[in-house]
Amino acid sequence: MSRALIIGRFQPFHLGHLKVMRQIATQYDALVICIGSAQDSHTLENPFTAGERHLMISHSLEAAGIENYYLVPIEDIKRNAMWVAQVESLVPPFDVVYSNNPLTRVLFGERGYEVRPTPLFDRSRYSGTEIRRRMIKKEPWEQLIPLEVVEVLREVHGVERLREIAMSD
Amino acid sequence: MSRALIIGRFQPFHLGHLKVMRQIATQYDALVICIGSAQDSHTLENPFTAGERHLMISHSLEAAGIENYYLVPIEDIKRNAMWVAQVESLVPPFDVVYSNNPLTRVLFGERGYEVRPTPLFDRSRYSGTEIRRRMIKKEPWEQLIPLEVVEVLREVHGVERLREIAMSD
Amino acid sequence: MSRALIIGRFQPFHLGHLKVMRQIATQYDALVICIGSAQDSHTLENPFTAGERHLMISHSLEAAGIENYYLVPIEDIKRNAMWVAQVESLVPPFDVVYSNNPLTRVLFGERGYEVRPTPLFDRSRYSGTEIRRRMIKKEPWEQLIPLEVVEVLREVHGVERLREIAMSD
Amino acid sequence: MSRALIIGRFQPFHLGHLKVMRQIATQYDALVICIGSAQDSHTLENPFTAGERHLMISHSLEAAGIENYYLVPIEDIKRNAMWVAQVESLVPPFDVVYSNNPLTRVLFGERGYEVRPTPLFDRSRYSGTEIRRRMIKKEPWEQLIPLEVVEVLREVHGVERLREIAMSD
Amino acid sequence: MSRALIIGRFQPFHLGHLKVMRQIATQYDALVICIGSAQDSHTLENPFTAGERHLMISHSLEAAGIENYYLVPIEDIKRNAMWVAQVESLVPPFDVVYSNNPLTRVLFGERGYEVRPTPLFDRSRYSGTEIRRRMIKKEPWEQLIPLEVVEVLREVHGVERLREIAMSD
Amino acid sequence: MSRALIIGRFQPFHLGHLKVMRQIATQYDALVICIGSAQDSHTLENPFTAGERHLMISHSLEAAGIENYYLVPIEDIKRNAMWVAQVESLVPPFDVVYSNNPLTRVLFGERGYEVRPTPLFDRSRYSGTEIRRRMIKKEPWEQLIPLEVVEVLREVHGVERLREIAMSD
Repeated sequence: MSRALIIGRFQPFHLGHLKVMRQIATQYDALVICIGSAQDSHTLENPFTAGERHLMISHSLEAAGIENYYLVPIEDIKRNAMWVAQVESLVPPFDVVYSNNPLTRVLFGERGYEVRPTPLFDRSRYSGTEIRRRMIKKEPWEQLIPLEVVEVLREVHGVERLREIAMSD
Repeated sequence: MSRALIIGRFQPFHLGHLKVMRQIATQYDALVICIGSAQDSHTLENPFTAGERHLMISHSLEAAGIENYYLVPIEDIKRNAMWVAQVESLVPPFDVVYSNNPLTRVLFGERGYEVRPTPLFDRSRYSGTEIRRRMIKKEPWEQLIPLEVVEVLREVHGVERLREIAMSD
Repeated sequence: MSRALIIGRFQPFHLGHLKVMRQIATQYDALVICIGSAQDSHTLENPFTAGERHLMISHSLEAAGIENYYLVPIEDIKRNAMWVAQVESLVPPFDVVYSNNPLTRVLFGERGYEVRPTPLFDRSRYSGTEIRRRMIKKEPWEQLIPLEVVEVLREVHGVERLREIAMSD
Repeated sequence: MSRALIIGRFQPFHLGHLKVMRQIATQYDALVICIGSAQDSHTLENPFTAGERHLMISHSLEAAGIENYYLVPIEDIKRNAMWVAQVESLVPPFDVVYSNNPLTRVLFGERGYEVRPTPLFDRSRYSGTEIRRRMIKKEPWEQLIPLEVVEVLREVHGVERLREIAMSD
Repeated sequence: MSRALIIGRFQPFHLGHLKVMRQIATQYDALVICIGSAQDSHTLENPFTAGERHLMISHSLEAAGIENYYLVPIEDIKRNAMWVAQVESLVPPFDVVYSNNPLTRVLFGERGYEVRPTPLFDRSRYSGTEIRRRMIKKEPWEQLIPLEVVEVLREVHGVERLREIAMSD
Repeated sequence: MSRALIIGRFQPFHLGHLKVMRQIATQYDALVICIGSAQDSHTLENPFTAGERHLMISHSLEAAGIENYYLVPIEDIKRNAMWVAQVESLVPPFDVVYSNNPLTRVLFGERGYEVRPTPLFDRSRYSGTEIRRRMIKKEPWEQLIPLEVVEVLREVHGVERLREIAMSD
């Protein structure tokens, strides 16, 4: 069994994420997808709860026909040197880590994991930062995320929440 | 969408758990399965990590043909009064809670959830405590758990670990 | 200004507590009352939340005409050596500590505080343990606590909660 | 019983706070006043401990003849989605929340509470930030806070502490 | 450079510990000595602070002429699966672990470390439990610990503290 | 016995630190050296683990002939008002604190400790910030730190780690 680990915050899950997973899923027996910063929600950077992100990802992957994955929320810890051990204790065993984040690459690399770069697709648009900016500014964002994520956002009133938080005190 | 929440420690996942899920899964759009005490492992009561339990459950449900579920590790917190809010933040929205644990029943009941008793199947045998006892004493235990769990235990050397921990200092 | 510190869990606040406070309050400018184990609730030992205990105490003291007090919830910490510093940071400055608990006496004593024994009044009856036992066993308990506490318990369905938690799994 | 919740950091408690409380206190049976960021002290933004702020507020309200209030320190937690549950566990039950902070408004609103804006009084002067700035710069600040707060600050050498912390390393 | 890890609570450091270290120190370039449960103090099981134990050990080793060691306090964490990573982040790199504790042996063994049993010397007497029992019962204990530990206990009034804590409430 | 406390992050330990210690060590029976922010590593500000810093300091002091010291890692806590108590519980008793940090000076001063300024030696060069900047920019840095620290950095591939972390995402 070969398994690949992917970590993201998925605020929200968008079509760039989906393309990456579609591509990597074919190369391994299974994906281990970590919902990072699981403890965060209701902020400008992290508006959606881990439970809401769980819904977004699982519905999108189901619609895309991707079935070979494990989906696990992971909270941040304040000790970088223990973070790999935390991930290892919460997810099924894995062989390869996909990440473009320098810290993630160093931490898993020092533990002996093979670390590969995540393929990127039009980062100027398929970016959580850009999508949250559009949501706040009422510019079009629906075409950048899977239809299933649009539905989850509607169910939890996610865009309204983000706009309210964005109002200054 | 109606979803039912089930919480267990699944140390290990056994056939009693599987029967419960098989029965409840048919009545709801989806099960929300929480792996409780996710932070615990390597103890007599909680020998297996959350990641190992994730594997046990997802492989067993896949083999049993149950597909409509979300599987989420949940850590204990030391504040009972905040525990429901923690669960709510980590899992998709749910309508009903299945539990026989008095504390769980009180906490979710006070928050307005409908709480139903979990159906029981031969508790003297289908019990994590009994199965761990048999593992330590080298009595037969394989027939009490799904075949997929036996395989996971073999992959992670789970029974050997439990026996080592059981040795007195 | 002389202030006396009293720490209790007040599960629930009872007439023994009230007698102590009535007696000590006359000797100091003010009482500093700490609601200990503030993080605990919904257990057999600690059924009531800190907020519920806050209501019990403040209503009872008001009815008893005691006005010179500060009421502060304090959470347990796992480091005994830091506990006095935690209390000091959360409450107004104080001069004397009343306690019969050996650990509390040692910790405040090592920090240079004068520690005095709490006067006791019929401990066999005016005891949280005894009152909770009576609540569970449906024996009379109302006469052991102030009327105001009875009312708070009714408002939050406190006795029902304790009985439900007391049911075995 | 109708109770209104007000949350502030009160670094320090000033006349703007007092005016708000005076106005709201007449409309409810009781105020529930939360001392937010209770864990913080000895910083430029949060120079005073929760215990010192407790003194400031209770002495000022007593002098102002406001008696129908509960005063509770609340620590920050890193999970926004659990914060309302934390407040609920530490304070008496409440019906309405007064706040101008967008995050507070969203979090309590999502939990079904009525949230009302706090009336503002000359924010350019009655502001903790402005008062701390004046303390550091030795500009006049005493007329912006109640006399009782001036006394507490003198007792704990609060302004000297703030100025020392403000010195650069 | 070969280094051996030894973990103990050292409540208090006694002649059995010293004999072990004397023996192991000759076989490695250095000892890495962890003061376990560093957060605990002022209890019957763990009466002395990590700082007091640091003094006991360093003075005893100096008097015994052992110089090739690193001494590091380590706090307990609630996640067994992350404990080795915590130790690794706090101490210099090491090759071998000496322990008779089953959990310690399993955790370090699963991470690939060589684990060896600690040699024992007359466990009925050279045991922290026995020494603390004697201190409380005022039976002779001085001959079971190094002279330097006797001095540290005298400096911090350690035996008096233990006896006070041992008094029942 | 007179002991002086010195706290630093030592990222990395450099010749300025060594000069300070050499000077202070002669005036006291012993130095108590705290490795601050012990939980941090693998960041631009705090690249090295507490264990690695322990090695740097102890090897440098040994080479410099300084033997009268205790070396203790100390984690940050989020409560300034409890920090002195944390330090006191983890280190041997001390009399004087050397620090130029305003917060450290205020916190220990309020607890009654004598606080003295740390002598400075050419801060523009002997500064952790400057040395880390040079490491990243591949400018000369070796002459600013003890030879023993250069060796530790080589053993743990410390400079390579810092450069990798410095790469932008």
